[in-house]
Amino acid sequence: MARENSVIKYGMVGGGQGAFIGEVHRLAARLDGKIDLVCGAFSRDADNCKTTGAALGLDPSRCYADFEAMMVGEAARPESERMDFVSIVTPNHVHFPVAKAALEAGFHVLSDKPATLNLKEAKQLRKIVKASGKSYGLTHTYLGYPLVGEARGIIEAGGIGKVRKVFVEYIQGWLATEVDNKQADWRTDPARSGGSGCMGDIGTHAHNLAEFITGKRMTHVAADLSIFVDGRRLDDDGSALFRMEDGIKGTLSASQICVGNENSLSIRVYGETGGLEWHQEEPNTLTRTYLDKPTEILRAANGYLSQGAQDWFRTPPGHPEGYLEAFANCYLDFAKAIQTNGGSTTGIEAGVRGMAFVEALLTSSKKNSKWIEIKS
Amino acid sequence: MARENSVIKYGMVGGGQGAFIGEVHRLAARLDGKIDLVCGAFSRDADNCKTTGAALGLDPSRCYADFEAMMVGEAARPESERMDFVSIVTPNHVHFPVAKAALEAGFHVLSDKPATLNLKEAKQLRKIVKASGKSYGLTHTYLGYPLVGEARGIIEAGGIGKVRKVFVEYIQGWLATEVDNKQADWRTDPARSGGSGCMGDIGTHAHNLAEFITGKRMTHVAADLSIFVDGRRLDDDGSALFRMEDGIKGTLSASQICVGNENSLSIRVYGETGGLEWHQEEPNTLTRTYLDKPTEILRAANGYLSQGAQDWFRTPPGHPEGYLEAFANCYLDFAKAIQTNGGSTTGIEAGVRGMAFVEALLTSSKKNSKWIEIKS
Amino acid sequence: MARENSVIKYGMVGGGQGAFIGEVHRLAARLDGKIDLVCGAFSRDADNCKTTGAALGLDPSRCYADFEAMMVGEAARPESERMDFVSIVTPNHVHFPVAKAALEAGFHVLSDKPATLNLKEAKQLRKIVKASGKSYGLTHTYLGYPLVGEARGIIEAGGIGKVRKVFVEYIQGWLATEVDNKQADWRTDPARSGGSGCMGDIGTHAHNLAEFITGKRMTHVAADLSIFVDGRRLDDDGSALFRMEDGIKGTLSASQICVGNENSLSIRVYGETGGLEWHQEEPNTLTRTYLDKPTEILRAANGYLSQGAQDWFRTPPGHPEGYLEAFANCYLDFAKAIQTNGGSTTGIEAGVRGMAFVEALLTSSKKNSKWIEIKS
Amino acid sequence: MARENSVIKYGMVGGGQGAFIGEVHRLAARLDGKIDLVCGAFSRDADNCKTTGAALGLDPSRCYADFEAMMVGEAARPESERMDFVSIVTPNHVHFPVAKAALEAGFHVLSDKPATLNLKEAKQLRKIVKASGKSYGLTHTYLGYPLVGEARGIIEAGGIGKVRKVFVEYIQGWLATEVDNKQADWRTDPARSGGSGCMGDIGTHAHNLAEFITGKRMTHVAADLSIFVDGRRLDDDGSALFRMEDGIKGTLSASQICVGNENSLSIRVYGETGGLEWHQEEPNTLTRTYLDKPTEILRAANGYLSQGAQDWFRTPPGHPEGYLEAFANCYLDFAKAIQTNGGSTTGIEAGVRGMAFVEALLTSSKKNSKWIEIKS
Repeated sequence: MARENSVIKYGMVGGGQGAFIGEVHRLAARLDGKIDLVCGAFSRDADNCKTTGAALGLDPSRCYADFEAMMVGEAARPESERMDFVSIVTPNHVHFPVAKAALEAGFHVLSDKPATLNLKEAKQLRKIVKASGKSYGLTHTYLGYPLVGEARGIIEAGGIGKVRKVFVEYIQGWLATEVDNKQADWRTDPARSGGSGCMGDIGTHAHNLAEFITGKRMTHVAADLSIFVDGRRLDDDGSALFRMEDGIKGTLSASQICVGNENSLSIRVYGETGGLEWHQEEPNTLTRTYLDKPTEILRAANGYLSQGAQDWFRTPPGHPEGYLEAFANCYLDFAKAIQTNGGSTTGIEAGVRGMAFVEALLTSSKKNSKWIEIKS
Repeated sequence: MARENSVIKYGMVGGGQGAFIGEVHRLAARLDGKIDLVCGAFSRDADNCKTTGAALGLDPSRCYADFEAMMVGEAARPESERMDFVSIVTPNHVHFPVAKAALEAGFHVLSDKPATLNLKEAKQLRKIVKASGKSYGLTHTYLGYPLVGEARGIIEAGGIGKVRKVFVEYIQGWLATEVDNKQADWRTDPARSGGSGCMGDIGTHAHNLAEFITGKRMTHVAADLSIFVDGRRLDDDGSALFRMEDGIKGTLSASQICVGNENSLSIRVYGETGGLEWHQEEPNTLTRTYLDKPTEILRAANGYLSQGAQDWFRTPPGHPEGYLEAFANCYLDFAKAIQTNGGSTTGIEAGVRGMAFVEALLTSSKKNSKWIEIKS
Repeated sequence: MARENSVIKYGMVGGGQGAFIGEVHRLAARLDGKIDLVCGAFSRDADNCKTTGAALGLDPSRCYADFEAMMVGEAARPESERMDFVSIVTPNHVHFPVAKAALEAGFHVLSDKPATLNLKEAKQLRKIVKASGKSYGLTHTYLGYPLVGEARGIIEAGGIGKVRKVFVEYIQGWLATEVDNKQADWRTDPARSGGSGCMGDIGTHAHNLAEFITGKRMTHVAADLSIFVDGRRLDDDGSALFRMEDGIKGTLSASQICVGNENSLSIRVYGETGGLEWHQEEPNTLTRTYLDKPTEILRAANGYLSQGAQDWFRTPPGHPEGYLEAFANCYLDFAKAIQTNGGSTTGIEAGVRGMAFVEALLTSSKKNSKWIEIKS
Repeated sequence: MARENSVIKYGMVGGGQGAFIGEVHRLAARLDGKIDLVCGAFSRDADNCKTTGAALGLDPSRCYADFEAMMVGEAARPESERMDFVSIVTPNHVHFPVAKAALEAGFHVLSDKPATLNLKEAKQLRKIVKASGKSYGLTHTYLGYPLVGEARGIIEAGGIGKVRKVFVEYIQGWLATEVDNKQADWRTDPARSGGSGCMGDIGTHAHNLAEFITGKRMTHVAADLSIFVDGRRLDDDGSALFRMEDGIKGTLSASQICVGNENSLSIRVYGETGGLEWHQEEPNTLTRTYLDKPTEILRAANGYLSQGAQDWFRTPPGHPEGYLEAFANCYLDFAKAIQTNGGSTTGIEAGVRGMAFVEALLTSSKKNSKWIEIKS
């Protein structure tokens, strides 16, 4: 199918058969017909890479043996043809080397989170991004939900007064027992996942959501991380008290052992004159509270939302949009960042902050002094 | 972007700029990367048609002035290139002529519902479909939700015993006042919408859902249709008592004047030993009741669902899938019907039944004899 | 325990051991300390009557062998001591004779619903009530929920505009199979329950709620009543289309065979500019919709409710009040009617209307002419 | 009204006109007709005391000027007449002296929580209770909800496996601004409320609920208490990480500044094989999760609950019972303790633990060492 020149082209690193998040990225990128996959280094396993590419209808010459080859191969193509950005969907330990290679080869980068394996790498990457002049984005998917943006907008406009208290949590149950599959495997391996399991994987989403919606930085944590399943090497649960700029206080929990929970990310924010509540599993509803008025139920795509939020919906009220649409919004947001030389909603700064947050949690969990500063 | 030969190609009739449902069809068709739009007759307005096609990256020579030209032009192309099926996304009165033309030109047809403007046309179309040997599908979108299929499967397997009672409704509020836009305009015009407004537009979905989930035919209705907004020419609200095969009884309501309702399609089915409840606006939950056990909450993508239902989800539990994914499932289902020469989930028979249902409602609403038979 | 003179005193007919609703009445009457049980004819079984009275701490001389004896015995006592009103908690067929005897003996009457066994009796009772000059109340319990009153108040004040459509239903599951207990027994016996089972027992509550909240009378029904359980002699399920004064339309369903439903009475009312929704099982929430604003969640006991509604709550917001409190409100309301010679919220007129409603349903269900008038 | 000898009699200290919780106690005690109020020292204001007593129909000679007089006056009455226990419904600082006086005068004591003003007093009271041989109960109302007991029973029986993680919170919004009324007044005054405001008032309920449901003791906390409203003297918000016996971890939050929250006490407990969730504002539902099965909704009064839980309901499923019924259950539980010389569900040990919990929070909040032991 022919495409206009204005369509953005990307290559993918990771996402071969058997992977989960790679296919999600491709679905999301494809949805709106504005972003085309043109090449990939889907797997170190040459057969897997080739098969994956074929199933996606890619030119076999653009299914590369590894990401290094992809950078070289694509750079050698005429500009009208070559990929504009690299999408990184590998396990965590490969995020940094791929991002570095891509940026240095002159490609924009959209990376799955967390940005890197640890804070040190993240700070290095920040320097590389800045030096490159290229766009760098992180798929903190949940910021792609329009009502999350609406929540941020309401708070920014003073709609709940000065923020006082935040409750944020990301609760799952799928690792409540020993799990032996590809997804569980690398997530619980320090070499591939980093110093934290649960907090790195999903706690970072909760942290990112809290900072995004309030527009404030988390400054200190007091944490208690746990390994509940025997033999597991990384935390599968944790809770933290936290403090943010401007006197905001809160709690953050992330867990993968809360039996029966699926993907329960939720946030409640209370200010001097109101509150907001949002749940990822019912993403088309935002609850708003007032001092002396009934609670309001704000629903997706309605005319009473800000124009900004309305614009991100693809269908009228009552037609549920979900995770893939949110993910697609992240891709559209990044495409726009490239086209306008603007920043993506979640860039390298958020990536560094996420890694600093995890590092502070790890420090706090080992110490008996309560408040550990988050230094990004 | 190159595609494998196995990708299905389609052309669209309707869906020019300013239309709503055409873009929804395109998003849905595109999502999984297995169905490509290759041509279109998007609008009788030549400029609109051209602009729409250009924005979609289509070859200008395949943006046709009208559907007749599209059938001729595509038929003239080599088989490897030409469209496999026609997607019809026009107002109701154009469904029949386009479907007829496409089938007679040797193309499969996937049509927005209702199948035709009235029952007479529907029966004609049934003959044409049968004569053509081509696949014909109707986008009764809500059957694309995997938990709707799960509900059908549970009932088929006797999971709630012999069915006794069904409550189904489809309630909206957007036409509670006089509305002056393109969407409202044709829906309330008998010449373009047919003999019924609300019942034809959304009551048919409720009817279709009840028949699909129970696996039984609705046989009689006693209806009361209303026009609540002054000056409107077609019903904007209606309720009916109904009877189905095997002694099932129920109520069906459809309304567009229930202020504050968005797209509230829901169904409850009760049998001798259990019940099921499903709501379109929270489509990832299916509630199941028992005689002497706690009510169960079945959630999308979990391992305890039937394999058939699990296969239709793209993401793990807790990652909400919504309307566009359901719509995409309808496209995948139709693509599979074409590839296997099988039937689509919703074919011409359902189309005829929908029109017969509307006709029975209209008859009943005018008469004071209670039970009107649905003759399809 | 001594009581002030202002405390109202009552005697009870029915409610011996093994009965259900009698004890509920006593709990409700007792809650606020303003209404005292002083005598009873709890059972035709003398032992049961005596034991019940003893367990309630009653003077044995005021545990009467039958209601006739109670009227005589109490009338013979000094005014300061004798009962003020009779509470009737028997099966339906005894409502009329007891009410008649009590009123004619000069006592006020608070009766469980329905008022009588049939319409003819109800009309007779109306005459007796009028002739007696005494207060007559019906415990249509659900009107005792303060948010039901709030709903009525909002509609009366034009808060949702002219009413157009009502959905009301009362759905249970406890009779989905053959049930052999005292409660089920009389409810399914025409001689004790009347011409209708389910509709008489709970459909009348739905009818009463719809008329109370809208302030309008139901004028016509088109009904389909069913007996789903083999061998049962009265309807265990039914649905009706209805029309009310001023062009209001709606549906009413009552069922006792919807497996998994407990006591699911709910109502939705839509007007030209808004809507209201209330569910008995979550009685402390009233949902209010608007044309162009977010839906509001009105919650019990909050300052934004009308003063009238606030006054009926005993505890602050967030302290759930339930069925017994609603029932107690009915008793308080009736006590106030006695003390002020005013009418109770639900009086004989509502009782007649309920019986006329049931009679119209029975007529409609047997006929094939659609609309049957409700003549009260 | 005459009463059997078996009726329990009580006197009340506190609860004069203008108070809130006193009237709640009286409603709760009265509901089941088994506990009679016979005397009171409702207020230090003699007029208030007299008026309150008169409105309650009490013998004026048993409306005492102060609690000391009540102990003397009642002790002087014949045993068949005098109160059996004292109900204490005063502000916190008066709990200890009244309990001490009553126990030493030979009366059982049922006290509003917290037991005392501080831990030192609580330990003293523990000695006094033990020496007295009398029953001592605390109205931790929320333990009176039958589904809370069901949750405890499920966990005790191993229904969710070894417990790992607990989330408990008690969130209100009524003190989000400066509030000037009787309720707010003493609650924010250290002299009358104790060292903590919010945590003493409602955090203790959360602590108590967590210990009751899990059957385990909380051993350590790391807390962050806040005063968000200018000029307030005691905490109006706080969160804590905690640890319990047997490796259980959790978070506890209590707040009175979360705008729009009413009385939102909730708990979630996760074990190795399942989970439980309960919310005070929807107390008739208990959610139960499993490793590989759909989530179950357990509902009040159903036959699938334990007999123990069923016995505490007064009405069948679907008839919501609420806060007053839970409170009445506490009174019945205490009456039974008296009659059987058994312990009440919540006794002095729970009282001491509550005060030790508050003291640990206060210590933790001031220190930067993380874990503070709870020493009861």
